Amino acid sequence: MQIIMHPIGVIHSPYKETKGIPIQGIFKPDVEAWVELREEYREGLKDLEGFSHAILLYYFDRSRTEQIEASPFLEDDKHGIFATRGPHRPNHIGLSVVKICSVDGNRLYFKEVDILDKTPLLDIKPYVKYFDVRQDVVSGWIDKHFEDGNNPERTIVR
Amino acid sequence: MQIIMHPIGVIHSPYKETKGIPIQGIFKPDVEAWVELREEYREGLKDLEGFSHAILLYYFDRSRTEQIEASPFLEDDKHGIFATRGPHRPNHIGLSVVKICSVDGNRLYFKEVDILDKTPLLDIKPYVKYFDVRQDVVSGWIDKHFEDGNNPERTIVR
Repeated sequence: MQIIMHPIGVIHSPYKETKGIPIQGIFKPDVEAWVELREEYREGLKDLEGFSHAILLYYFDRSRTEQIEASPFLEDDKHGIFATRGPHRPNHIGLSVVKICSVDGNRLYFKEVDILDKTPLLDIKPYVKYFDVRQDVVSGWIDKHFEDGNNPERTIVR
Repeated sequence: MQIIMHPIGVIHSPYKETKGIPIQGIFKPDVEAWVELREEYREGLKDLEGFSHAILLYYFDRSRTEQIEASPFLEDDKHGIFATRGPHRPNHIGLSVVKICSVDGNRLYFKEVDILDKTPLLDIKPYVKYFDVRQDVVSGWIDKHFEDGNNPERTIVR
């Protein structure tokens, strides 16, 4: 079974290469980027500005491999690809929670950016407090990197 | 530009039709479902059991339309499709935060289910407290439905 998708727009980001990009946008929270939606989807952004955050789904178009196990940026140990957020995954879908700055026509401006420039966008969803926030979350092999309340060393790609 | 994806597995759920399904899994939290991953991806689940929650991305294969504005289940007013979580969206990608029960071979058992039986699965990501939980979230047109601290009426599809 094949599923055919089309980009709904493109992400314009100051990160032209992986070097210097944070592994998640919250580690460089003030950098700004924007989505340029295809003109026919402009009305789809209506009422999104009422939300503080959005979930962006996009295509890791710079990835050339598919791994089943991978070493994430945070450590050298290997984990099942579905226990990591790395790009070299089946179907190459990326997910970022971002902070909405403004909507202007077919453009969505946002902060908390961890996405490369010119990345094809697949979907935008509103981040909903009642659906997406969980309490008592256990984060597997990642918890040990945050256990002293500080951010870990490897949050920016070298 | 076309992007071709393949299901990595299928979701087995007690919901055989939309009637009776919750609009989000947390509104019927104890119902259980499971992912059957394609055999070649089995090792990709390694270490996922250490996480309390996962994000499932899947294909709304029963949707036959693409809308730019839509009336969500919660109310009759129309909103831009990217300000809703409805299925009739460009690329038809669904996203659910689910509670992990266990991993057994190529199977992932989970609760907090809002997915139809036999839905094609596109990706599994670990839900990470440090990346995915946001405080001070404003949820646009959805907030008014939860403002008294109770769940709204229309959380189960009729």
